[in-house]
Amino acid sequence: VKKILNEIKKADKIVVFTHRDPDGDAIGSMIAMYLALRSIGKKADMFCSNKVPDIYRFLPSSDKVKDKVLGRYDLGIFVDCGSIERVNGGADIDTIADVNINIDHHPDNTRFGDINYIEPISSVSEIIFKLFKKMNVKITKDIATCLYAGVITDTGNFRYDYTTSETFEVAKQLKKAGADSTFIAMSVYENKTLSSVKILGAAMHGLESSKSGKVAWAVITKKMMDDAGASDEDLTGIVDLIRSVKGVEVAILFREEDYGTKVNFRSKFKVNVSAIAGRLGGGGHVRASGAVVNADIKSAQKKVLAEVYKDIK
Amino acid sequence: VKKILNEIKKADKIVVFTHRDPDGDAIGSMIAMYLALRSIGKKADMFCSNKVPDIYRFLPSSDKVKDKVLGRYDLGIFVDCGSIERVNGGADIDTIADVNINIDHHPDNTRFGDINYIEPISSVSEIIFKLFKKMNVKITKDIATCLYAGVITDTGNFRYDYTTSETFEVAKQLKKAGADSTFIAMSVYENKTLSSVKILGAAMHGLESSKSGKVAWAVITKKMMDDAGASDEDLTGIVDLIRSVKGVEVAILFREEDYGTKVNFRSKFKVNVSAIAGRLGGGGHVRASGAVVNADIKSAQKKVLAEVYKDIK
Repeated sequence: VKKILNEIKKADKIVVFTHRDPDGDAIGSMIAMYLALRSIGKKADMFCSNKVPDIYRFLPSSDKVKDKVLGRYDLGIFVDCGSIERVNGGADIDTIADVNINIDHHPDNTRFGDINYIEPISSVSEIIFKLFKKMNVKITKDIATCLYAGVITDTGNFRYDYTTSETFEVAKQLKKAGADSTFIAMSVYENKTLSSVKILGAAMHGLESSKSGKVAWAVITKKMMDDAGASDEDLTGIVDLIRSVKGVEVAILFREEDYGTKVNFRSKFKVNVSAIAGRLGGGGHVRASGAVVNADIKSAQKKVLAEVYKDIK
Repeated sequence: VKKILNEIKKADKIVVFTHRDPDGDAIGSMIAMYLALRSIGKKADMFCSNKVPDIYRFLPSSDKVKDKVLGRYDLGIFVDCGSIERVNGGADIDTIADVNINIDHHPDNTRFGDINYIEPISSVSEIIFKLFKKMNVKITKDIATCLYAGVITDTGNFRYDYTTSETFEVAKQLKKAGADSTFIAMSVYENKTLSSVKILGAAMHGLESSKSGKVAWAVITKKMMDDAGASDEDLTGIVDLIRSVKGVEVAILFREEDYGTKVNFRSKFKVNVSAIAGRLGGGGHVRASGAVVNADIKSAQKKVLAEVYKDIK
């Protein structure tokens, strides 16, 4: 931390990076850092190779995010970037800034910076909040808003496993600093597309479950996607909704694709769906995984369900 | 508070009450009080005129809740009861206990107790947590679990307006005391019925919206309810999902009933749907309201939408 504060002190022109396809923690922590640097008189810029997703446009200064880096900087600060490849197919960090600081929470971070500050907690926003405290940066309402958005998006609004008592302490202080938690949660969670709700409806309408109720699944065909005018992004959350049914231990979403059937798995408390996906040639995490089966949706369903039932007692 | 602590100290047999049709805060704060009283050596019972709803059965000691009060107690403690009528069509409080304490957060509480402790904050669980601190009750994992369930159900998992920095402080301490926030949130939120997800699907499949996208609505007919095997309870959350669509300011759910059409409203940031419902003979809050229109679903839709468009710029 001392080294980080020292480099920031020395630098005049600083650029903050986050990863491509940014989530709320990426955008939130990047903008917060940008605002903090500006507040202490630095010439700061921020960069992300994608434009800021619609749902994060409510964040203050989100219109200041650049998608091109021009010129040279004294210091580069990377937030939420597990590897340099995540930035923009690998930014040429040697030519952009003299010194690079890598601040992240992914345990498998590749430590590509000159200084690497990796803390495996729920969000980078939480790391940065604590850093700001040490920097004596005043947490303005705008900074608090960005960090709060980062905290809730990376903890599933305090619902994921790695939410700690410290996370709540940070939320408390951000709230005190002026973060409007209701407005931020509304902006992040109540910004669905019409087509996403329609395709969710179509999928849930045909929801099926095993006799025991422990396995439930839905199917999405290409025709259903067309009818709803839905894109891939619109499918986020559907398999989670299936899991939220009482008694369901494994939730599955089957999706018709040109190249076969895409399968997404979620489990609630016990079943390791990473192992199931693995047997089907896919992978992922214990509670969330996926695979692609080279078969039409009906055959895929049969094959996948047989595989799932092996692991259900 | 001193008076409350004093009465608890003096009493030996204590009964804790909560209101009928209990929510998570009612059940959570009641059980927490029961456990705390037992932990300091009191003969405690707890009472609710309904059985504990399925989704709260995961709470420790939820099987100890009684639906009949027998005998006489030294002290009665009412939690989350806005009025004595909320308890059981009006319990005869004079014959049950010598002294009655009323602990609540509804600002319009009727102050029916001998001692009334009303604090208009987000949850009674938060009030009781602070009371336990003053009573020097050890916050066990079981107590923390009940109180955390109360906090999240009454704040919409920290999303509602009256979530304060103090709420996060309490969440932090409950987490430290052993509340498994992920398990509790899963138990509360991932316990939907299959029929609720099916009827939600059917409704969303037919989702419609105004040209501007500011008004969106769905229709649920009796046939749809039958097809999904759904009951009234299964409809919770559907109108909220409609509101969660980007750009939607007013969400409406139309429901076919024998006596006409039931209409539910939600608004996001600006429109006062209490006023709209009022003009249709109904009522409610600024962001959530309802009315019954004595017409079939098609005519009702026409009438209601005309009323809504008056208030949309």
